[in-house]
Amino acid sequence: MEAIEELSIQPCTSSLYLRPFRLCYRQNGTKKFWDFMRTHDSVSILIFNTSRQCFVVVKQFRPAVYMCELERHRPQLFENQDKESLSRVEDPLPAVVGVTYELCAGIVDKPDLSLEEIACEEILEECGYRVPVTNLRKITSYRSGVGVTGSRQTLFYAEVTDQMRTAEGGGQPEEGELIEVVEIPLEDSMKFAYDETFPKTMGVIFSFMWFQTNIAPKLPKK
Amino acid sequence: MEAIEELSIQPCTSSLYLRPFRLCYRQNGTKKFWDFMRTHDSVSILIFNTSRQCFVVVKQFRPAVYMCELERHRPQLFENQDKESLSRVEDPLPAVVGVTYELCAGIVDKPDLSLEEIACEEILEECGYRVPVTNLRKITSYRSGVGVTGSRQTLFYAEVTDQMRTAEGGGQPEEGELIEVVEIPLEDSMKFAYDETFPKTMGVIFSFMWFQTNIAPKLPKK
Repeated sequence: MEAIEELSIQPCTSSLYLRPFRLCYRQNGTKKFWDFMRTHDSVSILIFNTSRQCFVVVKQFRPAVYMCELERHRPQLFENQDKESLSRVEDPLPAVVGVTYELCAGIVDKPDLSLEEIACEEILEECGYRVPVTNLRKITSYRSGVGVTGSRQTLFYAEVTDQMRTAEGGGQPEEGELIEVVEIPLEDSMKFAYDETFPKTMGVIFSFMWFQTNIAPKLPKK
Repeated sequence: MEAIEELSIQPCTSSLYLRPFRLCYRQNGTKKFWDFMRTHDSVSILIFNTSRQCFVVVKQFRPAVYMCELERHRPQLFENQDKESLSRVEDPLPAVVGVTYELCAGIVDKPDLSLEEIACEEILEECGYRVPVTNLRKITSYRSGVGVTGSRQTLFYAEVTDQMRTAEGGGQPEEGELIEVVEIPLEDSMKFAYDETFPKTMGVIFSFMWFQTNIAPKLPKK
């Protein structure tokens, strides 16, 4: 995963993925505007493998995270990027600074499918487990990126067994996905959650803590 | 807060706030690109008022959240927005669908200040409490918006008393901020956290749960 080479950056004037809009409005009599981006809602899933008492999460190279780290080391990085041209990134950082641990997740872009069905598809594609829709338990939903996207994320919990693993997972290479499935043993999970040397999303930390409060007390004693 | 009128939208081709870039790279031999946005890191603070045993959070109208809800009700909303022109939004939804509950927070855009100092400034500006830097306890940091921004958010915990409230809070009106300070009584807080009729960020839910695990057991009995 970590062989990242030939990096170059350019300002992005038109993107299929980032669609910026401006909302103009009047709030309590004062004229304002706000720039935001259209995005899709999303689902994420805390997966717990009961056969081996571990969480199943994913790990992937995230260009946006990588570039934040690169800018932290080279604050001037974007300052000469006003032109349309592609600039080669000389002497880049190791790719590992852009690799994050995340819950299995996906965007909601199939109007015919329920959130639960989309979640089950993602579990199979990314992690290789075939989970019936009825095995999903909704934890809650919340707003993400309230300044920029404001989309709704819905978090589910799914228990799986080794018998349910029918594929390797790893995402869809034809869509450019390259995902590594990682197991975090339950007994190490809270230490992992608060260890900042493993970059991760808040979803991982929150859901591990949710498990401790809501599921762990009911687990059969070994 | 909720008098929102005269809404119109337009595609946003140039923004001081949204700065899109494209990273081109080769991963394990395969050429790829990824569109992302430069953003600032941020801090957020779970504030607990010990005088009245309540959490102090903020509530504000979020245009990005509002537009997500509007699009949910009118899936065609953005489809005629290919032109540069401003389109009036006819018959909009009530503003309350775009109001979210959030932790006190701010972006890290002052290189001379520590994260703790920026957090204390935000507590004063948004919530009106004057908190010494040494009162802050770091909870953890994590990555937000890993697909688009990837910035680092650092979460703090601060205890305050009524005596520390020296101002009204409410944000900086000259910067267009219009923030309502809201108190959530400790005894109602977990019910509030999981009540999806109050739109909120994951930071609120996570930090309230963190408090239950890490602080509540040590509170003096009433």
